[in-house]
Amino acid sequence: MRFHRTVTPLIYYIHMTKSALQIARAAYQPKLPKALQGPVVAKEGAATQSVGDQEKIKQLFPNTYGLPVIEFEASAATTQQPAVNVGVILSGGQAPGGHNVISGLFDGVKSINPASKLYGFILGPGGLVDHNYMELTADIIDEYRNTGGFDIIGSGRTKLEKEEQFEKGIEILRELNIKALVIIGGDDSNTNACVLAEYYAAKKYGVQVIGCPKTIDGDLKNEQIETSFGFDTACKTYSELIGNIQRDCNSARKYWHFIKLMGRSASHIALECALQTQPNICLVSEEVEAKEQSLDDVVNYIATIVAARAAKGDNYGTVLIPEGLIEFIPAIKKLIKELNEVLTDPATGEPREFAGAEEQIAFVESHIAKDNLAVLKSLPEDVARQLCLDRDPHGNVQVSLIETEKLLSRMVAKRLAEWKQAGKYDGKFSTQHHFFGYEGRCAAPSNYDADYCYSLGFNASRLIAAGKTGYMSIIRNTTAPAAEWVAGGVPITMMMNIERRNGADKPVIRKALVELDGAPFRYFAAHRDEWAQATSYVYPGPIQYFGPTEVCDQSTKTLQLEQAR
Amino acid sequence: MRFHRTVTPLIYYIHMTKSALQIARAAYQPKLPKALQGPVVAKEGAATQSVGDQEKIKQLFPNTYGLPVIEFEASAATTQQPAVNVGVILSGGQAPGGHNVISGLFDGVKSINPASKLYGFILGPGGLVDHNYMELTADIIDEYRNTGGFDIIGSGRTKLEKEEQFEKGIEILRELNIKALVIIGGDDSNTNACVLAEYYAAKKYGVQVIGCPKTIDGDLKNEQIETSFGFDTACKTYSELIGNIQRDCNSARKYWHFIKLMGRSASHIALECALQTQPNICLVSEEVEAKEQSLDDVVNYIATIVAARAAKGDNYGTVLIPEGLIEFIPAIKKLIKELNEVLTDPATGEPREFAGAEEQIAFVESHIAKDNLAVLKSLPEDVARQLCLDRDPHGNVQVSLIETEKLLSRMVAKRLAEWKQAGKYDGKFSTQHHFFGYEGRCAAPSNYDADYCYSLGFNASRLIAAGKTGYMSIIRNTTAPAAEWVAGGVPITMMMNIERRNGADKPVIRKALVELDGAPFRYFAAHRDEWAQATSYVYPGPIQYFGPTEVCDQSTKTLQLEQAR
Repeated sequence: MRFHRTVTPLIYYIHMTKSALQIARAAYQPKLPKALQGPVVAKEGAATQSVGDQEKIKQLFPNTYGLPVIEFEASAATTQQPAVNVGVILSGGQAPGGHNVISGLFDGVKSINPASKLYGFILGPGGLVDHNYMELTADIIDEYRNTGGFDIIGSGRTKLEKEEQFEKGIEILRELNIKALVIIGGDDSNTNACVLAEYYAAKKYGVQVIGCPKTIDGDLKNEQIETSFGFDTACKTYSELIGNIQRDCNSARKYWHFIKLMGRSASHIALECALQTQPNICLVSEEVEAKEQSLDDVVNYIATIVAARAAKGDNYGTVLIPEGLIEFIPAIKKLIKELNEVLTDPATGEPREFAGAEEQIAFVESHIAKDNLAVLKSLPEDVARQLCLDRDPHGNVQVSLIETEKLLSRMVAKRLAEWKQAGKYDGKFSTQHHFFGYEGRCAAPSNYDADYCYSLGFNASRLIAAGKTGYMSIIRNTTAPAAEWVAGGVPITMMMNIERRNGADKPVIRKALVELDGAPFRYFAAHRDEWAQATSYVYPGPIQYFGPTEVCDQSTKTLQLEQAR
Repeated sequence: MRFHRTVTPLIYYIHMTKSALQIARAAYQPKLPKALQGPVVAKEGAATQSVGDQEKIKQLFPNTYGLPVIEFEASAATTQQPAVNVGVILSGGQAPGGHNVISGLFDGVKSINPASKLYGFILGPGGLVDHNYMELTADIIDEYRNTGGFDIIGSGRTKLEKEEQFEKGIEILRELNIKALVIIGGDDSNTNACVLAEYYAAKKYGVQVIGCPKTIDGDLKNEQIETSFGFDTACKTYSELIGNIQRDCNSARKYWHFIKLMGRSASHIALECALQTQPNICLVSEEVEAKEQSLDDVVNYIATIVAARAAKGDNYGTVLIPEGLIEFIPAIKKLIKELNEVLTDPATGEPREFAGAEEQIAFVESHIAKDNLAVLKSLPEDVARQLCLDRDPHGNVQVSLIETEKLLSRMVAKRLAEWKQAGKYDGKFSTQHHFFGYEGRCAAPSNYDADYCYSLGFNASRLIAAGKTGYMSIIRNTTAPAAEWVAGGVPITMMMNIERRNGADKPVIRKALVELDGAPFRYFAAHRDEWAQATSYVYPGPIQYFGPTEVCDQSTKTLQLEQAR
């Protein structure tokens, strides 16, 4: 067995000191949909279409386009199937439940035939290309059941996009006699899984590729996918912390807490946490963009609520802020776009060089459009400097370095000072700041995610046994008890359309942003004014694994509201 | 009933939307020591002495000095006792379990006689002085059983120190016919509780005063007090998050996480979290001070471990940092002391005025001693500026504004860059920063804290019934099952000595710092080199309330190690 020297999961797990919870939790047997509890038969629906650009997608995926939706039903047949070797890859950012997808997949392939083998590629898609892998045996799997993290084989961000990668991959797949590859990832990784499936199908390499929908951000969902795994656990972990802060806030009554939450492209996390905890303020990037709000509008919105609460003597509160907010403000988006342009040398496409910071700032200020300059000048000086100076290796402005929670609280403080001067506000405004992200991505999965992920992995083995490729493993009806969940597969091409990415048209899975006419946002919008004024905090507390079902087995509020439609 | 307009707990609780956990958890009946489960008799020990300065303390507390330690034993007697009205105050920072002290006290005074009444003073000791209170009835108490926060009556930081405050207090105590006051607070609040007890005893006002040991910092403990309440829950909440971050760290393998933990004066929280999670590095302020380490020494210590891990290909890790670290570094302490002096006008004692920032910095640099100037110049420029410029209303340097976690990671990055230049280090050093404090102070109490706090409150009612004053409510033997816990009272004077505070000798309860020859630190010191190198992370997960006893009912590692001595 090959084993890359820089990675030591096998050696590591032997020495792992386990917490009491880990030991107790290892015994949890995740629930499966009834259909998956015995032999299955695949019921096929009609041919499918992509959500957009059908002709183009069809052309790009001649072998994997138009396949039917699959639903598994219990079957009486119990014929022994041949052993099958399967490979698995964790791609991208961590999400609670990844280990359960793998243990479900392991139990699934072993139930097909005990001689089946599961191989894990180490540290993400790069492990396939670099032939860095390990066999996942029962001993290893048992160490990781119902635990958080992706540390069983590690994850990585290498993008599987190029033919040479696919060809390097097939070498090791052939060597290990692997007939199917399961790629656990977000929208981009699943898009690439489909490209790989198409490539191997076109080349008749005889390797199936199956995707699993992962991301705490919650932006990989559509008519076929109810939710991406990890969203439930991550949101519950953040909500525990927000609830604790709110209880502190309501006890001490002297701080405004500005809480930024992970999630660059969509505000699902912030919205779900708001539904769980009922903060005084929650910003939703998609709404800010749709209403074409300026930073000034956002600051005014917050300051108005702070002032209204202060008038009642309540100089405290909570504000939830999605990580990506700043990029959704149209004026800032426009400014960033122009900054990226003027800081790049058009002749070479490389970042421009400057003698020093002041020269760089002077260059920016004399080269950007008047309206963008006005926006730049409206920002606190250090944030403006940061935007002009800090660039990533590609020369782009580093938006993620901006501490939006501090930027907003400082601008609100300034606004309130003006209002105080004008006699329109008479309160105290002391602040605390928080950013939650890494605190939740590797939490031990909630019962929901433990069951959902185990089912996704187990179900993937059934798609493999049914000979499918270019499919995503799908579990639906998850607000019902697990036995009633529906298991099956959806062709990944069905979720695709063509989008402009880095200057080229690409087939991609459409990202799910918060829908302003969707039930979760509408519920929030109908209640937020009351929450702003009345201090309606809810304290969800930590995720529970052993208690009553109404405490331990609930799905997210987002999903409950969406399903109630 | 009087009710201050700016405070609305009564109105608020009626509208409280409860989480599923809160509803389920309300039914939990906290465990009591066996001795408190029925009628008790107070067994008195010999006369006591203060831990230091006996003569001075005795002089200051003629009525409350030298009293015996009390231990309650079960009694056969069941004589009905007269009703007694009791007041309760929450003082200082929030700690998990405050509501359980109050519900235990409520059940205790009602068990003495159902006609007894419990009054809560609103928003801390100020409520006593300002006559701001509410009666705590069964309906209200039931809403808050086993919940986090101090929001039932709020807390505050007004110090009860002056005779005029005591006299204002007695007015309302008489009006409400309150015979005993329970003050729930940290070392300072309990010191003041004793001063108040002494004052009322000397004046023969007939009001008893009882203290309860609260603080998440864990620095209120001694031969009599095993632990302060809230420490257990707060540390478990922080350890949940640290464990989650470590699992992420060990999955992505690309960041060093610098995690600052609340606790200004002592490092108990950081040490306990290290024992629970086994990070790569944990700094302990008391050790830094004892070894007279410089900031440079600390930076070298961290950088050396980073480099050693990098040599094995492990460019990731975790560092726990106690909030108060910077003030424990002797050279920085000395610098801060001199900054405070030179920035104060000796003629007036007021902060000096300057025309602008540059003038202020120039003044500082030309007035402080050479060695302090060297220390100032060794800091990153913005931190040095912050130290010279930002002062609180008393003119003091605002040490708490320094983001120690970022200061350290930046200085480590600089050191590593030097080593790279010198060919002594060849790795990547990317960082993430976290500060945990408000996330844990109002968590719902763990079973340990729920039981411990309920017992402390219930026990306080027994001290009241026994006619005691100037005592602290004490529960011991808490690493054993709750039935075996020992309940009693200790004269607060017994924990006192004389210390210099703000230029005057004062009787105070001695703060408990981490003892470098104590079992918890020794265990840590014996294992830290292994944890630094081998990636021995433990993932404790969230606090559980309903599971197996080894998951739900364990005390802190600190206490277990201390008791095992």
